[in-house]
Amino acid sequence: MSEVVVDSAFAVVNAIGLVAFALVGATKGIRAGFDPFGVVVVGLVTAFGGGTTRDILVNRIPLSVQTASNLSYGLLGVALAVGLALVISDPDRHPATQFADAAGLGAFAATGSIVATDAGLSAFGVVAVATINAVGGGALTDLLLDRSPFVLLEDIYAIPAVLGGISYVAVTGLGLRGATVVCVVVTVGTRLLAVSRGWDLPPMKELLA
Amino acid sequence: MSEVVVDSAFAVVNAIGLVAFALVGATKGIRAGFDPFGVVVVGLVTAFGGGTTRDILVNRIPLSVQTASNLSYGLLGVALAVGLALVISDPDRHPATQFADAAGLGAFAATGSIVATDAGLSAFGVVAVATINAVGGGALTDLLLDRSPFVLLEDIYAIPAVLGGISYVAVTGLGLRGATVVCVVVTVGTRLLAVSRGWDLPPMKELLA
Amino acid sequence: MSEVVVDSAFAVVNAIGLVAFALVGATKGIRAGFDPFGVVVVGLVTAFGGGTTRDILVNRIPLSVQTASNLSYGLLGVALAVGLALVISDPDRHPATQFADAAGLGAFAATGSIVATDAGLSAFGVVAVATINAVGGGALTDLLLDRSPFVLLEDIYAIPAVLGGISYVAVTGLGLRGATVVCVVVTVGTRLLAVSRGWDLPPMKELLA
Repeated sequence: MSEVVVDSAFAVVNAIGLVAFALVGATKGIRAGFDPFGVVVVGLVTAFGGGTTRDILVNRIPLSVQTASNLSYGLLGVALAVGLALVISDPDRHPATQFADAAGLGAFAATGSIVATDAGLSAFGVVAVATINAVGGGALTDLLLDRSPFVLLEDIYAIPAVLGGISYVAVTGLGLRGATVVCVVVTVGTRLLAVSRGWDLPPMKELLA
Repeated sequence: MSEVVVDSAFAVVNAIGLVAFALVGATKGIRAGFDPFGVVVVGLVTAFGGGTTRDILVNRIPLSVQTASNLSYGLLGVALAVGLALVISDPDRHPATQFADAAGLGAFAATGSIVATDAGLSAFGVVAVATINAVGGGALTDLLLDRSPFVLLEDIYAIPAVLGGISYVAVTGLGLRGATVVCVVVTVGTRLLAVSRGWDLPPMKELLA
Repeated sequence: MSEVVVDSAFAVVNAIGLVAFALVGATKGIRAGFDPFGVVVVGLVTAFGGGTTRDILVNRIPLSVQTASNLSYGLLGVALAVGLALVISDPDRHPATQFADAAGLGAFAATGSIVATDAGLSAFGVVAVATINAVGGGALTDLLLDRSPFVLLEDIYAIPAVLGGISYVAVTGLGLRGATVVCVVVTVGTRLLAVSRGWDLPPMKELLA
């Protein structure tokens, strides 16, 4: 029964992450001037890139090439991006897109934590895989769009995912339930706080000068 | 005996793809002003990048690091590129290079379909791996050359590989023979038609405006 | 007993490589104007990128996500880079950084050779994995910094790693001991010679003109 709960938690959080990140990625693709096929590709790479990297790291055939059922979530996210672009101008910076991005970050920090824990990784490995799962799709998309990944330039982007992974390990390690929910709440909460308060870190160069 | 036919079909199509994509990649490297070693590296990355990604996705040690025998096909392609650069100016846009690119695309859509089918992936997984195998080497090369991958900007480039993968699945699913040949013909045919007729898709932005 | 020697040789050389490449990567990150978190990420990607790629190629869960113990070497390298930036201007081109880069190149050519030999790859595969292990972290970092990988532009960078891998295979093949040391010495020696003498190769374009 415990396993059923874990599996359905994974399925729900995974679906949320796929829709959210496909929306964010497709929005970037529309802004970059791609044709419809390119927009779909960028949306799907953003949605599936992190999880595919995660599955390669834990040495199994990626879910993304095993089943078509997840594809519908990715396409739903792309469709939402097209709809959003019709009703609002500059959706790239709209709060709806920023919220979707934070939701995807939290969802994938959680799925990364779940899969890495199942694969028997150490606490360090769980946090590392959670972070890579969360930021991997966006970083891959930025490489495709020929720009330096957002995660390196945006100050508080990977840090919420690291905190989410740590909170998942802590809750699980204490033998408590609800690790998935705590991970999502911590990641999304710290990310939205950072965005809304404009938190940032000064360049290292300045600190050294 | 059936397995022997499949294996030799794989070997022939794989050799064609390696020569063709090494030629295309080395031509890009010469144009970009690399030294001879860099030209060889870019040619080999283009030739072996897609298949290595495919093997990682189906969770096996890549053929490219298991055996040196394929290396000779890659080096042959690089040598052809050097020869081509000696006899024609601007080989990057020459019909011979465009034909080699289409041939590589078709060959690797076929090898991707064969390997993914052997690995027991679903129909969706076969089409996904065929497409990634076909466009992966070129996309990786474009990242190395610090530009946005061709596949996102060129309108009808990945679509022929998707159609090739679908036709492979269809022929195999109907229990017919010749799936490899059909896949190559569909991919190369639609790609060459798109190039010669100048088919393209409008940017998504325009469709939404 | 032989295995203990191999394992401790791996551990020592791996630690050297991690510290050296984290220093080189973090120095690039400071120069690029990243904040402290970004500098740590770039340092760790440079240190762990090559070995993670190597482990994916030989189809095992990467060491980098299995254990936290290596992380301390990476962080030590980042700390050294920060210290270096405080005492010298332009550390990117300082001999100390170039020596660290050569040391990392040699160390990872050796760890790549050891792991690939253990995985049962052919002689060709050992040289290929040694080279990818040695140049992979730096190439990945350059992609993140949105520039064409150093390895394609710097003339004699991958070649020393190829020579180091070949020397490892030769010493092992002859049944002699000390393959790890020979590999490191050959790689570091040829790289430092190339840097100090300013060796380079002319662009292929010029050779063809």
